[in-house]
Amino acid sequence: MIAPRRLDSQLETELVDVAHTLADTARQVTLRHFRSPSLSSENKSKQDWDPVTEADRQCELAMREILSRRRPDDGILGEEFANVESHSGLTWILDPIDGTRSFICGTPVWGVLISVSDDCAPLFGIIDQPYIGERYEGGFGRAVMHGHGAKRAFATRETSRLRDAALFTTFPEVGTDAERQAFERLAGMTRITRYGLDCYSYALTAIGQIDLVVEAGLAPYDVHAPIAVVTAAGGVVTDWSGGPAHHGGQIIAAANVRLHRLALEVLNAGNG
Amino acid sequence: MIAPRRLDSQLETELVDVAHTLADTARQVTLRHFRSPSLSSENKSKQDWDPVTEADRQCELAMREILSRRRPDDGILGEEFANVESHSGLTWILDPIDGTRSFICGTPVWGVLISVSDDCAPLFGIIDQPYIGERYEGGFGRAVMHGHGAKRAFATRETSRLRDAALFTTFPEVGTDAERQAFERLAGMTRITRYGLDCYSYALTAIGQIDLVVEAGLAPYDVHAPIAVVTAAGGVVTDWSGGPAHHGGQIIAAANVRLHRLALEVLNAGNG
Repeated sequence: MIAPRRLDSQLETELVDVAHTLADTARQVTLRHFRSPSLSSENKSKQDWDPVTEADRQCELAMREILSRRRPDDGILGEEFANVESHSGLTWILDPIDGTRSFICGTPVWGVLISVSDDCAPLFGIIDQPYIGERYEGGFGRAVMHGHGAKRAFATRETSRLRDAALFTTFPEVGTDAERQAFERLAGMTRITRYGLDCYSYALTAIGQIDLVVEAGLAPYDVHAPIAVVTAAGGVVTDWSGGPAHHGGQIIAAANVRLHRLALEVLNAGNG
Repeated sequence: MIAPRRLDSQLETELVDVAHTLADTARQVTLRHFRSPSLSSENKSKQDWDPVTEADRQCELAMREILSRRRPDDGILGEEFANVESHSGLTWILDPIDGTRSFICGTPVWGVLISVSDDCAPLFGIIDQPYIGERYEGGFGRAVMHGHGAKRAFATRETSRLRDAALFTTFPEVGTDAERQAFERLAGMTRITRYGLDCYSYALTAIGQIDLVVEAGLAPYDVHAPIAVVTAAGGVVTDWSGGPAHHGGQIIAAANVRLHRLALEVLNAGNG
């Protein structure tokens, strides 16, 4: 395991404070729109249906406005607007609403993803679920859930056999046909397979409720905060070849090193 | 449309009060176990994996105890224990945890289902989500959501074209191969298809967030409360042939009559 990277403690405190301020603001903006009768969506894709709403845009703009004041030298990579170059070596990765389809449908399992990364990887991240009022933060020595009036440290669990594991993914088709087949091989060996939770699955992995999340076709802003939260809790997040996950693509998050290895073997069993 | 059936107003008030008392108690019992490290599950099935937990059993027993005191002449049909015969013409249908798999995985989209029926059909029902603190009640002239410190009347929405509709089901396999094919025909014509929410999908239909729920292989205790809640909000719930849904099996819930008809045509298009 690579030791978690740390910064100067004053800088860490500042970054954590900014991240929570972003999450607080995102909560206000998204909840103004969530389940609102006037919420409508537009399609961002020419090939497919990739919805975006005013809630996504306003939320990201509100977070960018805070960053421009409090961290003007940091870069920004957000889902909805152009990149801002980093002059500090740090970049904020923002997904204002991860799971816009879920948001549009009124489900309570979308999330706001906020993380800060250096050139190597995510350092600290937050998965926030505004409607339930749950926040999962990980990095800089923290792995803490805030919600329901309490703060609670969390850790992944020790499940060591695939046949005892709970596996999640968002879309049953997963990705390409080959990716779907790899996923189904793995799903056939686990105890439970469930669908549809977007980033909330990574939070459940971090707090030791489930064991594996396997997805494909993810963007960097989909995975940075989950990487920070899951690894802070003792889990492992890589791509399907075992390499760094923060570029997106094929992602596996596992509760522990042993389960990660077993699942990777199954995902790659068709490649030989 | 069949007019909603009503009882003597004093009896209605009594039944609604009992139903909320059951839901309040179920909330306490289930939340004691939800995300508890000591929660374990047993398998009820010889062929498959059909989990049950102490939370399911204790929750149903607590509700049965209340009914034995307050409504001793009413029958009980519950998921986990033997039927109690009705001497009043009324029967309580209880699913202490709809979505035990979701519950075991720590997701916030399982629910407690409580309804009271006569010989014909559900009269009044509650879908309760204890962790989020949301309660959806329907029947006896009510269609009200309680949660987040407020009460709000709800209604289904007017979506009239399949290509604008959001469709939910719990398991991608849906049921048999033929049932899955019918579902996929319909999914191919709708705008969004999402998975994994158990009873919560019916609540989202009732409050006008989504348009269709299509499932197969359901038991009576899975559908009675959803029927009461969705129909109270203006929706339609039947089996896939358009007949009564309260026996379980193949279920379709639709936001309105027109969408229900269009979806049934697609589900049954392979039968000609």
